[in-house]
Amino acid sequence: MPSVEIVAVGTEMLLGQLVDTNTPFIAGKLAEIGVDVFATHAVGDNRQRIADMIRSALDRADGVITTGGLGPTVDDLTKEAVCDALGVDAEVHEPSLRAMEEVFVKSGRQMRENNRKQALIPRGSVPLANREGTAPGFIATTTREKFVASMPGVPREMKPMLAEGVVPWLQRRFPLTEHIRTRSLHTIGLAESEIDHRIADLFASLENPKIAVLAHQFRCDVKIMAKAASADAAIALIAPVEHELLRRLDGHVYGVDDETLPFAIHVLLQQTQRTIAVAESCTGGSIAAALTSVPGSSKSFTGGVVSYSNEVKMQQLGVKREDLDRSGAVSEEVAEQMAAGIRKNLGTDVGLSITGIAGPSGGTHEKPIGLVWLAIAEESGVRTRRLQLAGNREGIQARATTAALGFLWETVGSAEPIRNPKS
Amino acid sequence: MPSVEIVAVGTEMLLGQLVDTNTPFIAGKLAEIGVDVFATHAVGDNRQRIADMIRSALDRADGVITTGGLGPTVDDLTKEAVCDALGVDAEVHEPSLRAMEEVFVKSGRQMRENNRKQALIPRGSVPLANREGTAPGFIATTTREKFVASMPGVPREMKPMLAEGVVPWLQRRFPLTEHIRTRSLHTIGLAESEIDHRIADLFASLENPKIAVLAHQFRCDVKIMAKAASADAAIALIAPVEHELLRRLDGHVYGVDDETLPFAIHVLLQQTQRTIAVAESCTGGSIAAALTSVPGSSKSFTGGVVSYSNEVKMQQLGVKREDLDRSGAVSEEVAEQMAAGIRKNLGTDVGLSITGIAGPSGGTHEKPIGLVWLAIAEESGVRTRRLQLAGNREGIQARATTAALGFLWETVGSAEPIRNPKS
Repeated sequence: MPSVEIVAVGTEMLLGQLVDTNTPFIAGKLAEIGVDVFATHAVGDNRQRIADMIRSALDRADGVITTGGLGPTVDDLTKEAVCDALGVDAEVHEPSLRAMEEVFVKSGRQMRENNRKQALIPRGSVPLANREGTAPGFIATTTREKFVASMPGVPREMKPMLAEGVVPWLQRRFPLTEHIRTRSLHTIGLAESEIDHRIADLFASLENPKIAVLAHQFRCDVKIMAKAASADAAIALIAPVEHELLRRLDGHVYGVDDETLPFAIHVLLQQTQRTIAVAESCTGGSIAAALTSVPGSSKSFTGGVVSYSNEVKMQQLGVKREDLDRSGAVSEEVAEQMAAGIRKNLGTDVGLSITGIAGPSGGTHEKPIGLVWLAIAEESGVRTRRLQLAGNREGIQARATTAALGFLWETVGSAEPIRNPKS
Repeated sequence: MPSVEIVAVGTEMLLGQLVDTNTPFIAGKLAEIGVDVFATHAVGDNRQRIADMIRSALDRADGVITTGGLGPTVDDLTKEAVCDALGVDAEVHEPSLRAMEEVFVKSGRQMRENNRKQALIPRGSVPLANREGTAPGFIATTTREKFVASMPGVPREMKPMLAEGVVPWLQRRFPLTEHIRTRSLHTIGLAESEIDHRIADLFASLENPKIAVLAHQFRCDVKIMAKAASADAAIALIAPVEHELLRRLDGHVYGVDDETLPFAIHVLLQQTQRTIAVAESCTGGSIAAALTSVPGSSKSFTGGVVSYSNEVKMQQLGVKREDLDRSGAVSEEVAEQMAAGIRKNLGTDVGLSITGIAGPSGGTHEKPIGLVWLAIAEESGVRTRRLQLAGNREGIQARATTAALGFLWETVGSAEPIRNPKS
């Protein structure tokens, strides 16, 4: 399997002023064509350091892909550094120079020396056309049969150059001997350590496909990666492992690959032609926002109320004042009344409610920060769940949102209807 | 100036499945305390490769900061790799182990062997408390007077550990000869090019302090960076430049440094003891969620309605059916009625509404995807604004939320009350 390292060039990344989205984009495309990325790097606009990074990467991998530093300014130094690393000089790429001159004639701007510099590429390298800008990219090969492919840092210029220039070149040079396919199982309601406990033996025993666990806020992904001589063979390798994982994680896998938790909820609702409305206190609209992030959500999501004040809880949701006074806004009784109230007022099949203490203030000994009550009302009754969440306000709000969606997914997906615990 | 390299650990980054935001965050904090980041790297969950990367980074820089790979699963290998790179073994950190046991007792979950593994740190290293999770970080020093600081990959856990553990340690170890201070001015309602135009001469002329413009979704930050022999001297250098920038960007700077747009809005509302309620359609609760992200927001935020269906717009907000029929849900009339309706129903001083077409479907020639109507109702009248936003559903919802908050900030901050355009 051919191996590559990616080098992103630009001082602003080292100052934390720019989040590098080029590297993950390039890495994703390389994974699709069976090129293994050993490591990725970011270096500043420093000719020496760029050259050193390219040299050491070439010691480890079959090739290096750089992005950034091909512009016209004095601190665009990638081309010079590649020449240093490979011990070659630069030559003018005439077609690029003429194309560049045309652009300037058209725009009526005057072409400067530093623009001319953009038409230079390492001697003997393959130029890569730049559909969206002036600076061409290039692929230079080394005496050791290794290569350096350089592209601009502007995503709009880099992406077509990668797709139309670098990827086809790599596919010609490294005809795919193995195909990679992946499958992500998205779980909710299991801690990472619990998942690890359930599948530790597979971790240890499996080589191909490999599995990995990724923890997120309050949910985890289990990823299956298979390599084979054909895509179909890779998919065939994944199937039995997926089947076994689904068995061990039964009742906790809400979707695969691109399927989100809100998407899974809408599928369940729309399959049974049910509608939902939500009443939120501590999450302040985050649950509604998550549910409406899904295209077509209007088929099953009717609306919601953010009942931050007690007055809104009473007026808009019909929560009883005496229960607010006796049990407090963060209580099972109030959660139940909020869920039943939003369901009734908006005339939906399902009503979801949440009330809790996100902090930083408002916590007491009996009701500490992070205490959350969830309730789901259906025609058959109301089901509630108590949570005690850790973290700061932001973390509690995020985890409460995911936990509420998880509770909702379980409930709307379960075969037996809610039986009101009180009745 | 002390130098550091950052190593982010996680195979998902090399597959392009995760955009690494930890590295720029860490780099930004290091820049503020005068630590020079030579390079940053991402490696997979491979003990050998992580160890090699740490070794080669230690050859170039004074220290290495790692993030990720401290979790409980078998593919969390950073700790083992650091031990390999430094040639030490691991020891149990008792306080972390006890704290971990408490967490599991509290949450009622069972603690597993692989959780215990998280309490291990390289022998002789300084443990770093994890406020938001179970795995402690650590700072190990080498025989060559260099160091490796390791933190978790979960941003929620990494950020406080960086601020409270790593940064103070670095400041003690590398007392600043040169103090760097920065000031970020957050602007709304000006395009990056417009800001460029207004301050181009300062860009060109200023060396210390330096200024930089960072564009975000629908808003821009202008950053001032000063270096001096003392913090006070650096701050003194910033003051006059900040004054000049505030003059040139007058009416568009809503906050500085950590101040968010929702925070600025609550300050304005609470200064004048006003309350607000929001009625959202296309943003589905995102505006309410943003406003409730601020601690103490309950003083000025009363609640909201997510009126996804026309029925909810009529029932909960008193929108007239004939206007929905005549002008459609995405229209100035409906936006006005939504804002006035939420203000009246929730009894607040201010009512904000938004209705638009987030896509991917629902667009027409007259009303394309991305069309958004905003309205703000006060006692004195209603003000509206029309937007045509670009991007996919997610992007449109995000930009619409920021634009609505910007419109709200302008309006609640403006001296003269709204005059109803219709009256």
